[in-house]
Order: sequence, then C-alpha cells, then structure tokens
Amino acid sequence: MLPSREASIDVLDDAAVAALAGWLAHSVSGLSQRDGVTVRVGILGAGQLGQMLALAGIPLGMRFNFFSPTPSASAESVGSVMIGEYDDVAALREFARGVDVVTYEFENVSSEAVAEIEQICPVWPPRAALIASQDRGLEKQEFTRLGIPVAPYRLVDSLAGLEVAVRDVGVPGILKTRRFGYDGKGQVRITARSDAEAAWNALGPAALIYEGFVEFERELSVIAVRSSDGTTLCYPVAENHHRDGILRTSFAPADRLSDAKRHQAESYARALLGAFGYVGVFAIEMFDTASGLVANEMAPRVHNSGHWTIEGAETSQFENHVRAVCSLPLGDCAPVGHSAMFNLIAEHPDTARVLAIPDAHLHLYGKSERSGRKLGHVTIRSRTREDLQRHVDALRAIPHII
Amino acid sequence: MLPSREASIDVLDDAAVAALAGWLAHSVSGLSQRDGVTVRVGILGAGQLGQMLALAGIPLGMRFNFFSPTPSASAESVGSVMIGEYDDVAALREFARGVDVVTYEFENVSSEAVAEIEQICPVWPPRAALIASQDRGLEKQEFTRLGIPVAPYRLVDSLAGLEVAVRDVGVPGILKTRRFGYDGKGQVRITARSDAEAAWNALGPAALIYEGFVEFERELSVIAVRSSDGTTLCYPVAENHHRDGILRTSFAPADRLSDAKRHQAESYARALLGAFGYVGVFAIEMFDTASGLVANEMAPRVHNSGHWTIEGAETSQFENHVRAVCSLPLGDCAPVGHSAMFNLIAEHPDTARVLAIPDAHLHLYGKSERSGRKLGHVTIRSRTREDLQRHVDALRAIPHII
Repeated sequence: MLPSREASIDVLDDAAVAALAGWLAHSVSGLSQRDGVTVRVGILGAGQLGQMLALAGIPLGMRFNFFSPTPSASAESVGSVMIGEYDDVAALREFARGVDVVTYEFENVSSEAVAEIEQICPVWPPRAALIASQDRGLEKQEFTRLGIPVAPYRLVDSLAGLEVAVRDVGVPGILKTRRFGYDGKGQVRITARSDAEAAWNALGPAALIYEGFVEFERELSVIAVRSSDGTTLCYPVAENHHRDGILRTSFAPADRLSDAKRHQAESYARALLGAFGYVGVFAIEMFDTASGLVANEMAPRVHNSGHWTIEGAETSQFENHVRAVCSLPLGDCAPVGHSAMFNLIAEHPDTARVLAIPDAHLHLYGKSERSGRKLGHVTIRSRTREDLQRHVDALRAIPHII
Repeated sequence: MLPSREASIDVLDDAAVAALAGWLAHSVSGLSQRDGVTVRVGILGAGQLGQMLALAGIPLGMRFNFFSPTPSASAESVGSVMIGEYDDVAALREFARGVDVVTYEFENVSSEAVAEIEQICPVWPPRAALIASQDRGLEKQEFTRLGIPVAPYRLVDSLAGLEVAVRDVGVPGILKTRRFGYDGKGQVRITARSDAEAAWNALGPAALIYEGFVEFERELSVIAVRSSDGTTLCYPVAENHHRDGILRTSFAPADRLSDAKRHQAESYARALLGAFGYVGVFAIEMFDTASGLVANEMAPRVHNSGHWTIEGAETSQFENHVRAVCSLPLGDCAPVGHSAMFNLIAEHPDTARVLAIPDAHLHLYGKSERSGRKLGHVTIRSRTREDLQRHVDALRAIPHII
C-alpha cells in the first residue's frame, strides 16, 4: 500500500541525509565563534516547544527565528517571529535564507514546504520522518516493516471499506483521520458494527484508519535523540496519563518497568531513527501490555511527555534537539531524581501557590486561557519517590491542576 | 565616618522598604494571570547576568526590558533593550514606566538614579544595599557594625593619610579605590612603606581604602536570597579561585567546610540581609582563615560565584532573584550533586569539545572576544566527587579553558 511514499523514505535515507549532513557541517563550521553566537536556528512554528528549544539553545550561543501564521507570545520573548503561511513558498524561502538550519516544532508542516526550504538550508529532522508521522497509515506501515508491534488496523477510504475493517479487526475500535489529527481530535470510537455508518459520516469522506483496541495496563513513551554522526541516546521511559485525548501527567523514570521492556522501547526508537537517518529528538508513545510494548504513534520532534527532562534529566530534550540539529555532541540522558510533569490546561493556577510547593518548577508559555489549551506545565523533581509523592499531592490540591 | 550615609541605610530599613513591598504586592496582584504573562521586569544593565535572569524568569511568565548605554547581544535575545545613560533621568523614568518592578545586574548604578526610578515603580534590591556596596569604606563599616570580621583597614584620602594607614595596618596590604572598582581594577599592592607614594599617585587623588592582608587558606562565597516576607535562604558555600583579580573557577558545595564555618557564613548573610531590609539575591566573598571566616566584599545582586546554581542547585540564583523581586515564594537552595564552574575568559573554547565532556553545561553570553572579558561559563555537575574530578580534568585539557 502506498508504495511510492514508502519508497521516498528509503531514498532520503540513503542519499539526501548524507548530503544534508555534509552541508550543515560546512555551514556551521564556516561560522566564527569569535562573536559568541555560533548558529542561527530557524523554527517552523512558534509555540511552547519553540520557546523551550530557544531557552535551551540561547546559552549554547544559538539565536532563534520563528516562522508562524500568527503572532506568538511564547516565541516572541526568545527570538524574532516572521509571520507567514506554511504554504507561502516565497516567505519560507526568505525565512530560510536568514538562518543556518531549520527545524520544526510540530509535524503538520507540509513536506512540499520542507522540500522548498531544503533548497536553501538543511532541515532536521529529515523529511522522511515528517512524511511518515503525518499519516497514521504510513506510520503504522513503517512500524510493521521494522518489526515493531502495533494494534491491529485497516486503512479505510469508504464506508464499505470501514465495514470490512470493523469486521476484520473487531470492536471496540477507533476510527481516525490518517492526517492532521492531534490531541484526540479527528477520532471516533466504534463499539458495535452498526456504529460504522455514523462514524464514517462524522470523519469521511477522507483517508482514515480503523484501529482495534489494545488491552493495556498503562501508556508509556520513550524520547530518543540521534546526532548527525548516528549516535543515538534514549531517555528513561515515562508513564503518561491522558484525559480527553490530551496528555495530563507524565512520571519518569516509569515505575515497575522491566529491563526487557525498557530494552524493547529503546530498540523501537533505535530502529526507527536508523531507518529515517534521523537527526534530532523523536518520541514514541506505546501501550504497556502483558505481551510487551505495542507502539501507538510517533512524533518527529520534542514531545510533551519529555518536558520533565528540563529538570529531570542531565540534559533536556530541548537542549539535545538543538545540539543534534546543529551537529554538536549529544548530552547525557540519564535521569536526575524522580520527576512528575503536570500540564496546565485551560486555566492558569496561582503562580505563588505553585512555587510554594517544594521541588516544583513552573513553565508558562505566555498563552491566554482557552478551553483545552496547554498553557504551561509544572515539573516536580525530587530526590526520592516518597518526596515526589508528597509534593505531587500538595500540587494536586491547587485549583486548576489536574 | 560618613554618618549621614550610614544613617540613610537605617532610614530605608524602617520605612521605605515596607512601603515598597506593599506597592509591589499591589502592582503584581493587580495584573491578570489570564494572558499567561504575569509581570514585566526592568533590569538596569544588559550583560550576562541580565541574560541569565531573563532565561530563568521567562518560564515563570515574566518578560524583560533592559536599560543599557550600549547595545547588547547578551540581552537582546531575551528581551528588549532601551539604550540610555544611567544618569539620563528622563530616559530612566520612561524605562520605569514600562515595567512593574526594576532590578539591576551590577552595583554601579547611581543611587540617585535609583531614587528617581523609585518614584515610579519599586526597585529591588533596596537602595541601602546598593549604596553600601558602592563604597568599600561604607561596606567595611557595615560589616563591622554587624560584628562581621573584616581585614584591618583604614580609609585614605591623602598621601599623608595613606602613610599613617600603612604604618597602622602594616605591610603587605592593598590600596583600593572605594568606588567603582571591580575584577581587580583600581587596586595597587603595597609591600613596603616606601611604596606608599607611588601607590597614591597611581590611584589618587580619590577616596581610597588601605586594607591589610589576611592570611587565608582559600576564598569562599555564600549566595543568599531574601524574599519580601523576610524569608532568607542560603546556598551551599562555594570555593572560589581567582587569577589577576578575576574569578576563574568555583566549586560547590565547598569541600572540607566545618559546620561551624558554614553557620558563620550563613549568619553573616542573614545579618546583612536583615539590616538592609533586603529583597533578592546577595553574595558575600570571604576568606577562610584558621580563626574563622573573614568577610571581603559583598554584591547586592546575582553573582559569578553562584552561576553553578543553574544546574547545581534545586533552584538557581537567577530564578530565586526574580522570584524575590516579584514577591513570589523562594525555591529550595539545596545542592544537586557536585558542581564546578569555569569562567570562559578572553577566548571561546570549541563548543563541540566542551559539549563532548560528560556532565558539562555550556553558557555563552553572546559577547565578542576581548582580553579579560567574561564570555561565558561551563558548569560540570556530577553525581559524585570522583566523576566531577574526572570531567574537570577533561575540561581543563581543552584550549582556552583555564
């Protein structure tokens, strides 16, 4: 299925990646360090991920330009924002001419736009990973090709196809758009075969995927980073809790994780990063099941379930991402203490109450309040699990923390 | 000596501090958190300390305006810089009108300028501490008044006075300008009574201070922070190494420090912070002698010997300073592992070589290379002292690290 796209992944693997690595190495090494600013990084998008990338990169001598369709209070505090549409090729080319390397903070940038930018400067992570992550169908096929277990699924592009898929995969299951779904949007649950028509009408006509349910104990994720020389490091696995399709909390390192499952998570990450010729930070969300870890989805970028690494790891995912895309050596991913990350959603808690909690670290994104919106996060990083639990309990007592 | 200035310290203690605290509490609480940006902080100065204050405060929802006589690549990446002279009252007033609270990143702002700003918005740390720290004579008198041991000294304002001072205090000793000396500038060593005239001609005519030598084993510093409600916390004592009057390295927590001396360092900080009605971060440099800790000088601001706290403490000195001046609760000052901080002076080391050292954290200030200039720092923060030593040895092998 979709062989031409899958082929394009392999083509990038072999040739373009090597060319881009050489190009970037030349570009960065051509800059003088004497003025203390080593590289200008362009970021497509200007949200909280961009803000945190810049906060990590500025101390390394990097400066940041953002490209976004709308002004952003998150990014404006740490760089300059160029306003433009992601399909405005002329604007993207102008943006690329002002920076040494481009990266992105979300995966819904069109690969055509990235191809345009690649004419001017290197773009990391590679387009192959972007393409696969934009399409749940391609993504699943890539997992399968690499021997990574996934939930049973069928690609669907008609009501008749959906009926066959529901029959083959069974119920319950979830019908999802293959493209542009995030934070639980573009998903409908199917609990009986008779739900198929309503589900198709809710999401179709469109390229969809029907996925069977996986019986799982909990959701996990692994954040990994690969440098331009192929060095790959993995952060400790995190345990994640979602509500209404939105990540609420992450705990890391995850409790009660066997070495076998930890190795499994890392092997999934290494297989994918190698296959994509990846450079940068990458995330895989997984289900923890009795028979092992089942991959759910991947993200070719820094990831919400890795925000705890700012305090909870020797080097944060943000710093390692900018190190990687700038061809610098990676930093250690080992944990520092025990961490719990809480997303701040829809409403801000009282800043003073949060900061009064021992071991609490507040990260606000400068965004105005709105239903379902991620406004910030709090990480509690403690020496012991007992301290962590006590401070987490105190944090949970504050209004608007969930 | 100089009783009117000393009196002004007490006046600020009693009345103005309380008034300003109320004013600030009102100002901050009057802002809505709903847009995710809680307070706009004005910083006098736009160097690396300002940059690191902003990097710490942006995640707390703060935004930063800097006031500086010259453009600054350090600060421009994290806020807007208003260009103006420190004695341009109209410019300072305009600057103050655009922010909720003002602080400063160095102590050579005139207290008259601060008084002008206080007409418009609160300024922390308090003017009393600024005044004392600007004059080595006042500073020594304040230490003595609070029972804090200092080197023997005499204030000097003539060659005849210097000759008397050298006779009373003895040689060797150091003649220093009372005002505007930093990083070893404005200092002349006197090793024989016959050196007095040459020393006077080198620095005079000016208000000077002649200080006797203290026999010490090593130099230490303590960073403390006091919040607007009077809560005072101290970071672990650091051991500092200077060369040519410039700080080169800090190790924290300092090795082989008795509990008695640690308590002594903390008691000096608490006495001074209380006397000044202080709000913000404060540093005292001390000599470690056989008979106890002897105070050398203080700084009413975040301090180079506290840069290790970014990685090496639960909450950095920069975050605690902005928390304090914005009337927010302070964060824990406990150490995280063992830290060593190396200043990068005059020339940049190779970024990739630094980042290849395990546990190394690089902080560049965006400044161009110049003799004697602090361009950045590297902190190594390790789990064990053995790891720290090994990584420090590796760092020292890199050119331009001293």
